[in-house]
Amino acid sequence: MTQKRPQTPQKLKGFRDYLPEVARTRRRLIERFHHHAEQAGFLTIDTPSLEYAETLLGQGGEETDKEVYQFMDHGERRVALRFDLTVPFARFVAENLNDIPVPFKKAQVGEVWRGEKPQKGRYRQFCQADVDIVGVDGIEADVEVVGLLLTVLMDVLSDVDVAVPEKARAVRLCMGHRQLLSGLLRTFMPGLTPELEPKALIALDKLAKIGNEKVATMLAEISGVAREEADKLLGFLSQMGPEGHDLTALESILGADYAADVTRYRETLALLREWFQHSPIRVIGDLSIARGLGYYTGIVFEVFFETLEGFGSICSGGRYNDLVSRFSSQHLPGVGGSIGIDRLLAAMEQLSAPTVKRRGVFIALATDDARGYAFDLVRRLRAAGFLADIAVKTGKLGNQFKFADRRVYKAVITLGSDEVKTKTFALKDMEAGTEERSIALTELVDRVGALVQRGRP
Amino acid sequence: MTQKRPQTPQKLKGFRDYLPEVARTRRRLIERFHHHAEQAGFLTIDTPSLEYAETLLGQGGEETDKEVYQFMDHGERRVALRFDLTVPFARFVAENLNDIPVPFKKAQVGEVWRGEKPQKGRYRQFCQADVDIVGVDGIEADVEVVGLLLTVLMDVLSDVDVAVPEKARAVRLCMGHRQLLSGLLRTFMPGLTPELEPKALIALDKLAKIGNEKVATMLAEISGVAREEADKLLGFLSQMGPEGHDLTALESILGADYAADVTRYRETLALLREWFQHSPIRVIGDLSIARGLGYYTGIVFEVFFETLEGFGSICSGGRYNDLVSRFSSQHLPGVGGSIGIDRLLAAMEQLSAPTVKRRGVFIALATDDARGYAFDLVRRLRAAGFLADIAVKTGKLGNQFKFADRRVYKAVITLGSDEVKTKTFALKDMEAGTEERSIALTELVDRVGALVQRGRP
Repeated sequence: MTQKRPQTPQKLKGFRDYLPEVARTRRRLIERFHHHAEQAGFLTIDTPSLEYAETLLGQGGEETDKEVYQFMDHGERRVALRFDLTVPFARFVAENLNDIPVPFKKAQVGEVWRGEKPQKGRYRQFCQADVDIVGVDGIEADVEVVGLLLTVLMDVLSDVDVAVPEKARAVRLCMGHRQLLSGLLRTFMPGLTPELEPKALIALDKLAKIGNEKVATMLAEISGVAREEADKLLGFLSQMGPEGHDLTALESILGADYAADVTRYRETLALLREWFQHSPIRVIGDLSIARGLGYYTGIVFEVFFETLEGFGSICSGGRYNDLVSRFSSQHLPGVGGSIGIDRLLAAMEQLSAPTVKRRGVFIALATDDARGYAFDLVRRLRAAGFLADIAVKTGKLGNQFKFADRRVYKAVITLGSDEVKTKTFALKDMEAGTEERSIALTELVDRVGALVQRGRP
Repeated sequence: MTQKRPQTPQKLKGFRDYLPEVARTRRRLIERFHHHAEQAGFLTIDTPSLEYAETLLGQGGEETDKEVYQFMDHGERRVALRFDLTVPFARFVAENLNDIPVPFKKAQVGEVWRGEKPQKGRYRQFCQADVDIVGVDGIEADVEVVGLLLTVLMDVLSDVDVAVPEKARAVRLCMGHRQLLSGLLRTFMPGLTPELEPKALIALDKLAKIGNEKVATMLAEISGVAREEADKLLGFLSQMGPEGHDLTALESILGADYAADVTRYRETLALLREWFQHSPIRVIGDLSIARGLGYYTGIVFEVFFETLEGFGSICSGGRYNDLVSRFSSQHLPGVGGSIGIDRLLAAMEQLSAPTVKRRGVFIALATDDARGYAFDLVRRLRAAGFLADIAVKTGKLGNQFKFADRRVYKAVITLGSDEVKTKTFALKDMEAGTEERSIALTELVDRVGALVQRGRP
C-alpha cells in the first residue's frame, strides 16, 4: 500500500460509533429481548435490509417516504433501505405463508434507516426490537404483544449490568385507539373529510411535542374545518384522569357504532393493568396517542419514562389489520410493537450511573519464552469460565501492568522463564496491590477463583 | 388504506429471508461468538452500515470496489454500504483513538453488503463476526485472533442445538503469509513487476477454485512473464506435506531477507498446533493461501470443513499493518479475522440433521372468560423459566390443539369457566396423548415441570 497523507477519519453525520461500554449494554438489551420473546413462544426471523423501493414506499405515510434511503442498484433496480421492520415483515408473511404457523408470533431485532434531521439521542440508523402477531384480530394478541415488550423493559431496567436506580424505572404506557380517535374526529370535526383524516392524525401525533394551541391551528389549516371544531376535539382529549380518558363518557359520545371497540379497548387496558399491577408501570387509556405511521387500524401505544419529560417514547406500536393485504389476498390482521433499542440506550445513559468494577484476569509476559506456557494458562482459565486476557504487547512489564489497570482487570498473572521451568505463576491482586509468587500451576483455578468471579464477564 | 389488487411479495434477488429454525441457529452462533470473545477480553464495538464512499473504496482492491453498493444520500454525500467490517474499523480506530485502550482487542458482529453474483449459499447481504487486535505487530496477537475464532467454531459445532455429527466437525486451518508469498513471487517470477503483484495475488486466490493450469495461464497473461516462471511457482506451491509446506526448504529458497518472517510463521503455526492438539482441527502452513482483499501484509488464513470439498472457507482473515495508516499518522498495525456466520450456517445446513424435539407448554382457551386467568398462568410459567405460549386465536379447542401440535409444544393446558371458578387446570402430554383434569393451581409449576424442561427453550 502506498504511503499517502492520511485521510481525516470521519463517520457520516447522523450516524454513530458504539464504543465498548455502550456496545456491551446494547448487546445485553438485545439478548434479554430475545430471551423473553423466545420464552413466550415468539419465533425469531430476519429479513434483508434492502427491499424493492415499491415494497416500502407508500406504507408509512408521506413524511416517512421522504426519509427513506433509496437508490438504483447494480442491476438497475430501484431499492431502498428499510425504515422499520413492520413493512418488510408484511412482505415476509405474504411470501412465506406456506412455511410459517398462523397465527404467527414473530420476534426480530434489526437496524433501520431514516434520513431524518439528526437530533440529540436520535440517529439516522437505529436498532429496533419488534414482536408481532399476524393472522388474528383479538384481545389476546394485543395484550400479549404489549405485555411482552413491557416485560422486557422491566427486566433490563432492573438488570445489574445496566444499573438504573429503582426510582428511575417508572414508565407510563399510553394506549390509544385509531378507530376510536377516528370516531372522535368524525364527531367533533364533522367538517373533516375522510381523505384528510391521515393528515389530521399526523397533526395529532405532534400534540405532546408542540401542544394544543399549535395543533389546533394545524388541524384547522390542514382540513379547512372551523378552528372551533378542532378546539372541541382537543378539549375532550385534554381531559384525563389518572387512568386516562373517561370511557363511559367516550361510549356515550361515540354511540352504538363504536360500542364493541370501546368494550375491547376497556378490556385490553384492564388485562394489562392486571399484568403489571406489581410493577412501576402505569397503564393509561390515552386517546390522544395517534402515531405518525399510516398503517395502524386499532390500538396504538407509546411508552415513556416518567422522569424523562420531553424525551419521547422508547417503545411503541399498534394494530395494523390491512398492512399484509398489500401483498396477499388472504386477510391477515396484525399487531406489533417495538422497543427502540437506541432510544432506550440513550434514556439509560441519562438515568443510570454505572460503576466500574474490576473483573477478569490478565496474563503478563516477563519473557518471550513463556509464550506457549502463557497460552496454556489462558486456555485453562477460559475453560474454567473466567474472563482471561493475555498480553499481546509484550516488552516492559510495567507497561503491561499499566495496560491491565486501564482495562480494569482484577488480577494479573506474571509468567517468565522461571515460571515455565518450575510450572508456577505469580498472581497480583490489582485492588489490594498485593502479589504472591511461585504458586503451583495445579492451584491455578482455585487461586484465581478466590480473586475473580466466574461466569458472564 | 384503499383495497387494491395485492402486489406480488418479492424480496430482492441475492437476498434471503431467515425462517424461524434458521434464524434461531444463526442467533445461537452469534451469541456463542460474543460469549467467547468477551471471555477472552475482546471488547464489543459497532459502527454504522453506511460510510462515506471514499472511506471504503480503494481498500479491498478493484474487484471489491465494483461490488460496493454506493449512492448519493439526501444531503448529496456519496455514501456506501460497508462490504466488510475491517475497513470501517480502521476508520473507527483512527477516529476514537483517545477513547480506546491500545492494543485494542475488538469484537464485532454485523451485516455487510456486496453486489456480487448470487450463488448457492452466497448472498448479497451476509453477516460477519470479527475479532481484531490493533496497535501491535506480534505473534501473540496473531495466535490470539486465530485461536479465538477456532474456539468459537469448535464450540458451536459441538453445540446441542446445532447438532453437527462428530465426524463432520473436522476442519482445516490453512495459513499462508503475504510477505513470504511475495518473496516466492519475486524468486520464481523475477519478471513480475511489484506493481503487478496485487493482480498476481488475486489470480493465486483462485487456485482452489480453478486449479493450477488456469491460474498459470492467468499469471502469465496478467503479468506478461513467461509461462515457465508461473509454472515453477505453482510447482513449489503444490508440494505440501500433511502439515503444509516444507519451511526448511522455504528458508533456503528465500534466503536471509526472509529469515525472521519464516521463524515467526513457524512459531505461529506451532502455537496454534499446540492450542488445538486435542481437537479435530488440522493446522496447515499453506503458502498458496493468498486472500483476495488488498490490505493484508502478514499471515493470511482460511478455514475449511474437511468434508465439504469445494464449499469455500467459513472463516478467514490476516494481518493488515498499513490499513489504519490511511486515516491516522500513528502506526497502528492490525490483525483480524472473521467467521462468515451465513457461510457457516449454510455449511451446517449440509452437515447437520437437526431433530425436532417437543418443548414448552401452550395454554388453550375453552371460553373467553378464562382470558385473565390464562394470562395469570402464562406469566407464572414464564417467571418459573418455562417456554410458555398462550392461544391468541381462540374458538374451537380442536384447532387450538392442532396449532399447539404444529408448534411442537410438549404440553397443553386447557382453561375454561370451570377452571377459573375452581382455580384448577387441565394438562395434556402431547407426546403420550394423555390428559389430566382438575389439577390444583398450586401444583402448576411442579406438574408442568414434570413434563417440560425449563431453561433456554
